[in-house]
Amino acid sequence: MSYRAPVSDIVFTLRHVVGLDRELERGTFGDLGADLVEAILTEAGRFATEEIAPLNRIGDEVGAILADGKVTMPPGWKEAYARWTKAGWASLTGPAAFGGQDLPTSLSVATLEMWNSGSMAYGIGPTLTLGAVEAIHAHASPQLKDIFLGKLVSGEWMGTMNLTEPQAGSDLALLRTRAEPRGDGSYLIRGTKIFITYGEHDFTDNIVHLVLARLTDAPPGTRGLSLFLVPKFLVQPDGSLGPRNDVWCRSLEHKLGIHASPTCVMAFGDNEGAVGWLVGEPNRGLNCMFTMMNNARLCVGIQGVAIAERAYQTALAYARERRQGRLPGMPAEDAVAIIAHPDIRRSLMTMKALTQAARAICYETALAADLARHAREAGEREAAQARANLLTPVAKAFSTDIGVEVASIGIQVHGGMGYVEETGAAQHLRDARIAPIYEGTNGIQAIDLVVRKLPLEGGRAIGAYIADMRRIVEAVARIDDPAFGATGGRLAAAVDALERAGIWLAATMPTDPDAALAGATPYLRLFGIAAGGIALARGALAARALASEAPAGSVALARFFAENIAPEAPALAEIVIGGAPSVQAAEMALAS
Amino acid sequence: MSYRAPVSDIVFTLRHVVGLDRELERGTFGDLGADLVEAILTEAGRFATEEIAPLNRIGDEVGAILADGKVTMPPGWKEAYARWTKAGWASLTGPAAFGGQDLPTSLSVATLEMWNSGSMAYGIGPTLTLGAVEAIHAHASPQLKDIFLGKLVSGEWMGTMNLTEPQAGSDLALLRTRAEPRGDGSYLIRGTKIFITYGEHDFTDNIVHLVLARLTDAPPGTRGLSLFLVPKFLVQPDGSLGPRNDVWCRSLEHKLGIHASPTCVMAFGDNEGAVGWLVGEPNRGLNCMFTMMNNARLCVGIQGVAIAERAYQTALAYARERRQGRLPGMPAEDAVAIIAHPDIRRSLMTMKALTQAARAICYETALAADLARHAREAGEREAAQARANLLTPVAKAFSTDIGVEVASIGIQVHGGMGYVEETGAAQHLRDARIAPIYEGTNGIQAIDLVVRKLPLEGGRAIGAYIADMRRIVEAVARIDDPAFGATGGRLAAAVDALERAGIWLAATMPTDPDAALAGATPYLRLFGIAAGGIALARGALAARALASEAPAGSVALARFFAENIAPEAPALAEIVIGGAPSVQAAEMALAS
Repeated sequence: MSYRAPVSDIVFTLRHVVGLDRELERGTFGDLGADLVEAILTEAGRFATEEIAPLNRIGDEVGAILADGKVTMPPGWKEAYARWTKAGWASLTGPAAFGGQDLPTSLSVATLEMWNSGSMAYGIGPTLTLGAVEAIHAHASPQLKDIFLGKLVSGEWMGTMNLTEPQAGSDLALLRTRAEPRGDGSYLIRGTKIFITYGEHDFTDNIVHLVLARLTDAPPGTRGLSLFLVPKFLVQPDGSLGPRNDVWCRSLEHKLGIHASPTCVMAFGDNEGAVGWLVGEPNRGLNCMFTMMNNARLCVGIQGVAIAERAYQTALAYARERRQGRLPGMPAEDAVAIIAHPDIRRSLMTMKALTQAARAICYETALAADLARHAREAGEREAAQARANLLTPVAKAFSTDIGVEVASIGIQVHGGMGYVEETGAAQHLRDARIAPIYEGTNGIQAIDLVVRKLPLEGGRAIGAYIADMRRIVEAVARIDDPAFGATGGRLAAAVDALERAGIWLAATMPTDPDAALAGATPYLRLFGIAAGGIALARGALAARALASEAPAGSVALARFFAENIAPEAPALAEIVIGGAPSVQAAEMALAS
Repeated sequence: MSYRAPVSDIVFTLRHVVGLDRELERGTFGDLGADLVEAILTEAGRFATEEIAPLNRIGDEVGAILADGKVTMPPGWKEAYARWTKAGWASLTGPAAFGGQDLPTSLSVATLEMWNSGSMAYGIGPTLTLGAVEAIHAHASPQLKDIFLGKLVSGEWMGTMNLTEPQAGSDLALLRTRAEPRGDGSYLIRGTKIFITYGEHDFTDNIVHLVLARLTDAPPGTRGLSLFLVPKFLVQPDGSLGPRNDVWCRSLEHKLGIHASPTCVMAFGDNEGAVGWLVGEPNRGLNCMFTMMNNARLCVGIQGVAIAERAYQTALAYARERRQGRLPGMPAEDAVAIIAHPDIRRSLMTMKALTQAARAICYETALAADLARHAREAGEREAAQARANLLTPVAKAFSTDIGVEVASIGIQVHGGMGYVEETGAAQHLRDARIAPIYEGTNGIQAIDLVVRKLPLEGGRAIGAYIADMRRIVEAVARIDDPAFGATGGRLAAAVDALERAGIWLAATMPTDPDAALAGATPYLRLFGIAAGGIALARGALAARALASEAPAGSVALARFFAENIAPEAPALAEIVIGGAPSVQAAEMALAS
């Protein structure tokens, strides 16, 4: 089953649900207008649909292949990447001084959704390059920028992030890779990094690795980490490629999914030492990583949306075509399309509602990040940054959790055919399953939300967000349209639950952090459900106002979410508030 | 990571949670005693741990292979099956007249759990043979029984169930396979069956296919289906194998998981016609299938428990070993096992609680089936049959849903290592994903629960079950032990929710069946949560009474379930009761 980019859903969400239109009208993004936004998204949709989506299956079947230290991408992939960069898609958000188009992150995230729907294994490569661009632009010396940034922005070269080591995944304090100064401003890097996405491939002539390592005299822990730029090929003063650097892909992981994304074990300096240059200040490597972390996490969140969208489309098409069961009065030899059955409808509506909710949360986060850079007033920029910080773990974890959930429902809608690889539904689940893990596991996201994000601005960030949610609840109540059913009441209860649980967490964290942390994951889910339900209601209100311009069924979808998913919210608040003692008493139960 | 059969959990659940001990004491199973039960389960645990579990990985990697119409099982599998049958494991429940040991289903289901934990791809083969034994024993002629039953009971031959055709999965009315009488009491069968589990393999010299087909003059729909026995090799009067029958495996499905289980496209009668014999009355084939359907569904339910158990063990072992993060005051180079982190504890407790709950529901269903056959009083037998019928869709669907859920959490606990196939966690998810689909999709189970099971005995079956649940709630309240925390209140709310939703469904079904059916899936989940929470509480009460004999942590586990999972129950009742209108309004939202 092929994918067709849902451009009208995407445009509607961006412009009317999360409010890009208002910013365009205010001139926040200069002379960028709605017409150009739509034109860009339409063209991206065409590229994703026609050029990337057809690569997904062969990417899964053939995968990336390592031989003699070189990784070959699946048939057709290299050519597609060349067309993609030639069309300018790599440089959407890149800085103008280095050839980028400097467009908003919200627009870029919407295109990223479509690349990832086309193929998650494809989408993750450019995502990492965006991160490298961001880190280098923010922290590298002018010389390094001159040499590397233009080619990374254009996509002529790609970038990687090298954090994880066998003993250090979520816990970067345990990193051991070493960097030794050579006296000429460069360093020799030695160490092994694992799980390096696109660590080696044949898309580009050069690959720019950003590597966390310890200077010789660095203190232990995360305060002793520095960031280094280590290119695959050293670059001559004239910009041409010089000698091969001592950084090698030793093996590829055999993974559940995203087979075409080469996940490399990278050996730095096994021989003469890998030459690298410091990015940013010594021992401040983690700070440089933090610069790009929000954006990288959001980009993984959008992968959850992307795979959910594709799984939904696949299941919907099957449900319209597969005929099983009869309506009263039909002859025994006849059958209806299974979409006629209420249980299948529930499945499809759940898929669509979760997907659309996660999409809105991700775009909302992206727009907040844009406003943090582009808003006129400093106060507005600060508030927007706080909101982006607050929402990022939700965008990452809720979206990737529902990506797995929706992909699994998609298999179920197919019945036995869903379990057969040829159908493609199973690949969606296999691919989706990485997104809750990488770029900070969803458990880490939940802890980040509770420990660092709830206290932002002394609680004003979450307070302002809840106040915004309440305005939507009130607007739903005010219009008093029977088509909304119980939407208003259900969402009011969800927002109350979110507030209640947040207050409890904030009060508990200082005195009993383990009790608060025991509730982190259900709290993040609660946050996602409340935020998603509100976003869909905002969409329904906008659709009602816009009438013909809006996707049909926005009200029905918002109502479905409110009446069938949002009721979980008060239960989750009870779990957050009341669940900790038995989590803490786990020792005995797990011992047996 | 290897598997160690949790024999003490299994024995405790069987004897004390679902109440086998009471029946043993009453002599319901003749002179079968607790000591023999324990000895059998201990020995089965040893076999599963030592002989089957090590086959799981190679089974996944090599899979079943088709060449020249013959299927070869993975290395070591055939030999293990031979040892398994030699040890008598195939014949546990078989009728004594045909060499079986006629032991209770509840005991057999507990062993089946262990075979499936060892390897789901292994466990499903014997499961189907058990079904064939049951159908033949109940419906076949004495001649057919004499020829086939003994060898199926011993496991010398295996059996299959041939229902699905490309156009007919959940909807058997659409079956087209034909049966033409040859005039000598046999029939020629022609048609293609798909998704035939263990349709061809090298475990046994002969394979006995049970095939649903239409007699030449049969009416359309399900009332025109008859059941036929079609052996791979015809059998000579002396019991030796005769000519090869015209039934062939044409291809194997390329599946997401259970790679070692050969899922065959079976061609019946492509050449001279496949010779078969009628089992039961003409046009009553579906009735013959119903005989074994409860048991087959329960056996698939136990697969969910089995895979959840193994995934839990894998994750627990990893969480004890993997070190990331520090407690306050630890040096930066040091790290604690991740099981110390509250979020990981929540994950592991969720895995264990769901697994143990589903196990109890499955065993409870099995014991009800046993009492339906063996109880002294006719009234008790009828009530037990009604309970087995009521619980079967819950045992099948809830258990297989949590199988997928627990396997997915298991991957997450492993972080990046969970996504790498070598770890084994990913295989559990791939294997688990079939169980919600085959033997009646979980959607079909939910519909069965609402349409056929709630009205059983005019509602008395569900009423009696809820009354039993309330007795546990009251017992928890009565002991008033602070270690139970909020268990009593949470479970009372869950049981109330189950009752409320059931009353609404029963009232709605006759007038607005689509509205009731829209709530079927959340209702089944609600049923599973309420029943599972009650079962764990029953276990906690029993453990408290037995003290040293019981697995440690039963109270902690029951409390965790009540406080962290049971709060979903009232939300699910709201979804059942209030969710239908927006499911029914789905058309518009899905159209876009």
